[in-house]
Amino acid sequence: MDIQCSHDVFENVMELAKRRGFIWPASECYGAVAGFIDYGPLGAMMKRRVENIWRDFYIIQEGYYEIECPTIAQEAVFIASGHVKGFSDKMCQCPHCKEYLRADHVAEGGNVCNASIMKNEELSAAISSCRCLACGEILGNVEVFNFNLMFSTTIGPGSQRIGYLRPETAQGMFVDFSRLLRFYRDKLPFGAVQIGKSYRNEISPRQGMIRLREFTQAEAEIFVHPDEKNHHPSFRRYGDYRMPLLTYIQQQKCEEPVEMSMREAVDKGIIANEYVAYYVALTHELLVTIGINPERLRFRQHLPDERAHYATDCWDAEIFSPRFGWVETVGIADRTDYDLHAHARQSGIPMTVFIQFDKPKKTVRRRIIPNMSVLGKQYRTKAKAIFAALGDTTPTTEGVDIEIGDEKIHVPASLFEVRDEVIDIRGEEIVPHVIEPSYGIDRMCYAVLEQAYDEDIADGEKRTVMRLSPNVAPVQVAVFPLMARDGLDIIADDITHTFHKKGLLAEYDDNGAIGRRYRRQDEIGTPFAITVDYDTKETNTVTLRDRDTMKQVRVPIDGLTETLRALVEGRITFTSLMP
Amino acid sequence: MDIQCSHDVFENVMELAKRRGFIWPASECYGAVAGFIDYGPLGAMMKRRVENIWRDFYIIQEGYYEIECPTIAQEAVFIASGHVKGFSDKMCQCPHCKEYLRADHVAEGGNVCNASIMKNEELSAAISSCRCLACGEILGNVEVFNFNLMFSTTIGPGSQRIGYLRPETAQGMFVDFSRLLRFYRDKLPFGAVQIGKSYRNEISPRQGMIRLREFTQAEAEIFVHPDEKNHHPSFRRYGDYRMPLLTYIQQQKCEEPVEMSMREAVDKGIIANEYVAYYVALTHELLVTIGINPERLRFRQHLPDERAHYATDCWDAEIFSPRFGWVETVGIADRTDYDLHAHARQSGIPMTVFIQFDKPKKTVRRRIIPNMSVLGKQYRTKAKAIFAALGDTTPTTEGVDIEIGDEKIHVPASLFEVRDEVIDIRGEEIVPHVIEPSYGIDRMCYAVLEQAYDEDIADGEKRTVMRLSPNVAPVQVAVFPLMARDGLDIIADDITHTFHKKGLLAEYDDNGAIGRRYRRQDEIGTPFAITVDYDTKETNTVTLRDRDTMKQVRVPIDGLTETLRALVEGRITFTSLMP
Repeated sequence: MDIQCSHDVFENVMELAKRRGFIWPASECYGAVAGFIDYGPLGAMMKRRVENIWRDFYIIQEGYYEIECPTIAQEAVFIASGHVKGFSDKMCQCPHCKEYLRADHVAEGGNVCNASIMKNEELSAAISSCRCLACGEILGNVEVFNFNLMFSTTIGPGSQRIGYLRPETAQGMFVDFSRLLRFYRDKLPFGAVQIGKSYRNEISPRQGMIRLREFTQAEAEIFVHPDEKNHHPSFRRYGDYRMPLLTYIQQQKCEEPVEMSMREAVDKGIIANEYVAYYVALTHELLVTIGINPERLRFRQHLPDERAHYATDCWDAEIFSPRFGWVETVGIADRTDYDLHAHARQSGIPMTVFIQFDKPKKTVRRRIIPNMSVLGKQYRTKAKAIFAALGDTTPTTEGVDIEIGDEKIHVPASLFEVRDEVIDIRGEEIVPHVIEPSYGIDRMCYAVLEQAYDEDIADGEKRTVMRLSPNVAPVQVAVFPLMARDGLDIIADDITHTFHKKGLLAEYDDNGAIGRRYRRQDEIGTPFAITVDYDTKETNTVTLRDRDTMKQVRVPIDGLTETLRALVEGRITFTSLMP
Repeated sequence: MDIQCSHDVFENVMELAKRRGFIWPASECYGAVAGFIDYGPLGAMMKRRVENIWRDFYIIQEGYYEIECPTIAQEAVFIASGHVKGFSDKMCQCPHCKEYLRADHVAEGGNVCNASIMKNEELSAAISSCRCLACGEILGNVEVFNFNLMFSTTIGPGSQRIGYLRPETAQGMFVDFSRLLRFYRDKLPFGAVQIGKSYRNEISPRQGMIRLREFTQAEAEIFVHPDEKNHHPSFRRYGDYRMPLLTYIQQQKCEEPVEMSMREAVDKGIIANEYVAYYVALTHELLVTIGINPERLRFRQHLPDERAHYATDCWDAEIFSPRFGWVETVGIADRTDYDLHAHARQSGIPMTVFIQFDKPKKTVRRRIIPNMSVLGKQYRTKAKAIFAALGDTTPTTEGVDIEIGDEKIHVPASLFEVRDEVIDIRGEEIVPHVIEPSYGIDRMCYAVLEQAYDEDIADGEKRTVMRLSPNVAPVQVAVFPLMARDGLDIIADDITHTFHKKGLLAEYDDNGAIGRRYRRQDEIGTPFAITVDYDTKETNTVTLRDRDTMKQVRVPIDGLTETLRALVEGRITFTSLMP
């Protein structure tokens, strides 16, 4: 991995994020606990905008409905999913400072190779010469053991019932499969999505917003007929969409990503099927829409030994951070029928879809039709039992031997007729496969913040500016009266209220010199600012300023809301307003 | 409480909610656990619409920013808030069937009075003759003990650090007070809101959506100068708003609620102050907006012994349910400075606001100014200590006695000058009071569903119709081709896509007779349906049908989205479209 180290942008952006109300350490006044953050007023607004753009793609465009399951679920769910048994990290405790450490991190720090595939005993031996990541002492003889990453709790009094905080939102959609299938009127393909909190009790998270113990996921589970994975109904939307792909073969050969279209990637067998390719492309488009620079975005295929045991193909959208390197932000996996099989086995409830054939399939069924009247006369009280038993036999031309209780009876061929009937099979029960795009909303928000951070020169002084895409900027427009008097403040206040009524988030500010007010808005990424000046009263126009170019243009107050909305939604550019 | 019992509507609405995808028992395939529900596709959409209407009121109208804190918080937060010590229910275990029971519910079932104010030993004695609510046996000798209702877990490995799932979103806003104050540039009043999950480990919840172990709250915390609680800056908005109020005095006298305006209620001292009255009225307006019938809505003041120890006034918005009686759905409390004091004490960090006086207050400060040169000569090495000590003395015209070490020294008045100076005090540090409107989103959703449920006659047959307010209905418009051929299906499909692009949720349906399609949409509360028929190709018009009246009108396809949006947002009525 080509990680370039630059601590500056991380520290600069987090300092700004804290100071201006994007991100705060959670319950800071009690000493923040690692892995928990608060979204402050601006951060929460930005996060909501990111989530709503996600909904535009998955709910409006794709037509999948959102559901909302509890974050606590009973143990059976996670026994089925495999989390109770397998969702753990290898851990050790430093014998010197007593700090708990992730054994793989210790190994990485000590240049121990292949730590990820070692058993606990091997890893324990391998890291004995490594240094503790906390106190720096040589670890020596340490035990490596598994630590389950689920937060557990108990439901109800008496503590009999174990509950876990979900480690992913996905299981809710699997568990609800039968209900969802019914909702979608028993037809494949269909999808359900969920945006909500998930939890992983990380051993020692030290990476700010990148590794959280409580985080927000947006996941879609798309249920598809296994034979139809190569026929996404809207594939033409993204067939020609091109992007660089880092396949597992290239990674093994240490080669660079190759750019190609989704059509090509599927045809060449690089991406497993149209469904996976479709969501790889959709994810690329979505991330660019929220402001991610395509040059800092790549799609990396999981290596065969890196893939979850149930996945046949998996691609990660990785975003480059000068601080953290390539950060896995979205995963798009073909989970096959693993999850539905697992829950069907655990719950005893079949999770299948009846697929009707286009036309019924003919199949031959052999029926044995006894001659009841003769049978009755000859065998009397046993006739009924013989009649019932005959159906399961394979008679020869001689007849057939059957057993009734302990008695063996030969029934001659003359007492029944063998008839081969052609019957129609209307369809079959199948277990759908699941395609899962899974997004880490917090990592997306961090990438958006980090990439937006910039410094330049304005009026001869250093300016800090968040170049947020207007569709995710928390405050969409600032409104300033040049002076807080002579009625300018009243006009500015009216404009602000008009914006609010139309659902645009505007911030009124009459405090301090106009230059300082611009700086405050630049720093939180407000893309546009309006100034009401003395000309406004004469001409009914205001100045509109663009955050990035700092250029200004006079625009009429009439239609101002529509102009701003079009700018924020990207339907017009600021340049198009210039004379 | 005047509870009328009718099980029908509850069972009917929950059956429909399950069957059509509003509400499902959570992880049903493993045997649902009481107190947890899933919002299915339609329920989640409806819930999101309710939450967004809440945001229109609190974020857009009131201008309070939303924040997002983790649902897990460290123990110190809930030690300060009092939840670790006091957030519990009295519980007992049936000695026969071993079921855990809420002792107050047992008492209520056995007509034991004043259970809520009894100590554990008294209650234990009082319920010994009551029957178990589960098995029906006489309880006999049972111990009553406190069961803390917070879900607990441990953070990180080693299990050293206790964490709790928050029992309310409010604490996050208190803990972030200093950050919020800074965000709002150190000025009162300001507010912060949060919509998110909260958790209460109920002992034995048996009331569907009314008593959940995991539920969604929408809370606003408004920080106000204690002297300004009677001066809400926008009080005129609701001054004349009238509604029936059930004061604590009326409850004590068993009288009916009295209708009055908020102005009157504040002036008569019935509601404690303008802030509480403002949010009582806003809550009334909000609940009516989402479709609650005002005749099933009342505002009840907490009785003095019912109020939390910190609240000076508290009003509950209660919604009447034929099944559950009057259900507390929103609480509006004046929490005073209790929470900020508690967190300041626990964390050691002051939670105050510096309030600058309108003009500096003059105050007299007495200064003692020694004559250093004489003092120096007379006392030599002690001069410095005497100089320092003099400042704290109150001299007479004789002079003053001071102690330096063990030595008593008389300093005559001639060696210093007493000067009374008038100085300016710019302001003072105060602890703000908190006004808290707190909404139970799930209870609001249940009330909306329950009140929407209706049955009538259509085409001579029974029709089940959810009369949801168009602004909360999950599907906003249905689009039907009269026949799925002759291009009608293509036109209908185009209309559906146009709606989606403009953010209207439309459902296309070409399956079955038109009457059956209407019934399916009526049952999920879709307020409007459009049918594309053979005339559409000639006249470029479609029929638009109103769910409630079942009347139809032809409208042009041009401008259809705008018409539908206006109908859904309540800006025009269906009747206004009739010829």
